[in-house]
Amino acid sequence: MTQGAKGIIFIGDGMGGRPCPELDGQTTVEAANTPAMDRIAREGSCGLMDPISPGIPAGSDTSHMAILGYDPYKHYRGRGPFEAKGVGIEVRPGDVAFRCNFATVEGRDVIDRRAGRIKEGTDQLAAAIQEQVPQIEDVEIIFEPSVEHRAALVLRGPGLSHEITEVDPHDPDVPYLDSKPEEGAKDMAAAEKTARILNEFVKRCHEVLEDHPVNRERREKGEFPANIALPRGAGTAVDLQSLEARYGLHAAMIVEVDLVRGLGQYLNMDVIKVEGATGGQDTDELAIAKAVVAALEDHDFVLANIKAPDLGGHDGNAQMKIEAIEKVDRALGHLLESLDWDNTTIMITADHCTPCSIMDHSGDAVPIAFFGNGTRPDDVERFGERACATGIIGHPRGMEIMDILLNMMGRAEKFGA
Amino acid sequence: MTQGAKGIIFIGDGMGGRPCPELDGQTTVEAANTPAMDRIAREGSCGLMDPISPGIPAGSDTSHMAILGYDPYKHYRGRGPFEAKGVGIEVRPGDVAFRCNFATVEGRDVIDRRAGRIKEGTDQLAAAIQEQVPQIEDVEIIFEPSVEHRAALVLRGPGLSHEITEVDPHDPDVPYLDSKPEEGAKDMAAAEKTARILNEFVKRCHEVLEDHPVNRERREKGEFPANIALPRGAGTAVDLQSLEARYGLHAAMIVEVDLVRGLGQYLNMDVIKVEGATGGQDTDELAIAKAVVAALEDHDFVLANIKAPDLGGHDGNAQMKIEAIEKVDRALGHLLESLDWDNTTIMITADHCTPCSIMDHSGDAVPIAFFGNGTRPDDVERFGERACATGIIGHPRGMEIMDILLNMMGRAEKFGA
Repeated sequence: MTQGAKGIIFIGDGMGGRPCPELDGQTTVEAANTPAMDRIAREGSCGLMDPISPGIPAGSDTSHMAILGYDPYKHYRGRGPFEAKGVGIEVRPGDVAFRCNFATVEGRDVIDRRAGRIKEGTDQLAAAIQEQVPQIEDVEIIFEPSVEHRAALVLRGPGLSHEITEVDPHDPDVPYLDSKPEEGAKDMAAAEKTARILNEFVKRCHEVLEDHPVNRERREKGEFPANIALPRGAGTAVDLQSLEARYGLHAAMIVEVDLVRGLGQYLNMDVIKVEGATGGQDTDELAIAKAVVAALEDHDFVLANIKAPDLGGHDGNAQMKIEAIEKVDRALGHLLESLDWDNTTIMITADHCTPCSIMDHSGDAVPIAFFGNGTRPDDVERFGERACATGIIGHPRGMEIMDILLNMMGRAEKFGA
Repeated sequence: MTQGAKGIIFIGDGMGGRPCPELDGQTTVEAANTPAMDRIAREGSCGLMDPISPGIPAGSDTSHMAILGYDPYKHYRGRGPFEAKGVGIEVRPGDVAFRCNFATVEGRDVIDRRAGRIKEGTDQLAAAIQEQVPQIEDVEIIFEPSVEHRAALVLRGPGLSHEITEVDPHDPDVPYLDSKPEEGAKDMAAAEKTARILNEFVKRCHEVLEDHPVNRERREKGEFPANIALPRGAGTAVDLQSLEARYGLHAAMIVEVDLVRGLGQYLNMDVIKVEGATGGQDTDELAIAKAVVAALEDHDFVLANIKAPDLGGHDGNAQMKIEAIEKVDRALGHLLESLDWDNTTIMITADHCTPCSIMDHSGDAVPIAFFGNGTRPDDVERFGERACATGIIGHPRGMEIMDILLNMMGRAEKFGA
């Protein structure tokens, strides 16, 4: 074991893609100007990674779990608990947690699932909900805002279940749904109770928000009011071994999305918030890079994620995605200049593809490259889906990445003699 | 999910191979003139597939199971049930099913394991067996001919077991064998009974066939008489979830071999027979291609297989195998011209290698290429074992193919959020 060896996993969220017709058949990673990534690929060890397994479209939560070495097929119990933990709500055994969107409805029709991507005022809206809807039946309601239009909800009380259907219809211009027990729910009485309470929460939430001053002001400005919170992704608490116990790494996480931050908290990583890291296209990538450099001074391992590339993918906007990828590249450029690469290994990748042609996550493999301490350069000349396909790392799964990285860091334990 | 997206898996049976000295070290796939496969590889996404796992020589049955996503290590219970189902015999729980070859024996010595590849008259031979050997002890005998020298046998009665040794010695110029209970059979009494009945069946079968008019005529023409049926591949019924229930795909199968057809029937696929599809070197590949195009009009997914390349491999005849591969290529050429590739994804491969140097299946990986909707072109320029090794799909196993295909079709479900 190399004492003091450092490791980084740096993720451009949703950065992988498919060929874009408007880019002459290049992917956005291939088309972007990425001198840092290209140097990492050229001087490092490349491959393609299936975050979960070939063809399976990963969520950000399941992918980050897998990349950190925790099998999502064994441990994943829905997004809600991560989201809730990420905004600082403790999720206890028996709790059912949800992520929510502030949204705009007229009657039951969803006009905008993100309330015009509301950025300000959600603190006040959430406080109003929390104050006026503290409890339904014998169940405590805990509601906290997250970034932009996002929020988290926890139901705490006896006899609850996560096996219920969604309220959020996931599509615009359709009514929001009544939650119901899932078919074949294990505890049907608990599922019925949970669905009933959730539906009542949504109804009262709408009543609280409809004429809230924040929304009156938004209407006056011609903005969509955030007049409802739509829960989805019901999940129960997960119990994960800490990253430090698992790998002996004192670890930090620097990410922009509460969902992934919640995972970091479950893994007992030091979750570091960075001023200027907005989670949006305007994020301060240099601030993030500097925070990674600083965190490595007193941590063995840092996982970092810049969210912006995923946004362009979801919007189907190749140019926006390219600009976001170039932001990620500038952050990596700062790391290349700032760290001691004889003692540090970085792995760069995406947590999944978000092709502009799909406007959602796909199950295609993502390019990966390892650089620095312990790597073996191959013949790959640049970073990209096609180029990395012939690299020396081959085609690992997310679950294998930590072992590969620990080996390069000199921290892998010999199995056998 | 892309509504209406179509998928095809097109298999050249046994098409993979090893370098042939007589082809200057090329494989038959590399040496064949295959403009359609080469276009699919050049414009598509390539890789090498281990049908089961690296180094394991696959049967056609286990390989097709795996490629369709059903783990043969969990679900395979011998070839007999597929063969029997493929020729239209219902295999019930408790039945033991066998595939049989009509063969030529002198005394107990096997002169030709395929009775000179008999093509005609097996209907009459089978009818004679069925009529004169309807039952042995308390066990019903069900015997049906398949294509060429092949047939299926089902034993139906109380207390039977598939844990018995083979009658077919698998080699020429040696005596055929007495079936015995396998060492460590779970139900030794049942295995002893089944072996006894099977040996009696073989003996009486020989008596029925020896002087049958079909065989007298064959001897007069200097052809090998089909004077015995040699059972092998004892198996019990398997219970598989339908392909439609598993993947939500309304699915058809267009293949030439009863064994694979039987699997299709177990999976509740629409098994379509094509006029002119002989399963031999003379098969009508365009009729098969047209049937695939027609089937896609009212199915989401078609698995097709052309048997001929496997025959040349088993015969150790590289030229014959090349001609068969070029037949497969002509079928693919017709598909390339006929289908809407913005909405259709095809995967081409072999179910296993049948190298001419081995004259049997080997455990080498087979080349694969995906083309059409949802694919990511890589730098591979042609279809073949060596060329596909550097493709973007990497080195998946058969079991992963359906997930990869569903992702390209836009029909994969996201795991996580």
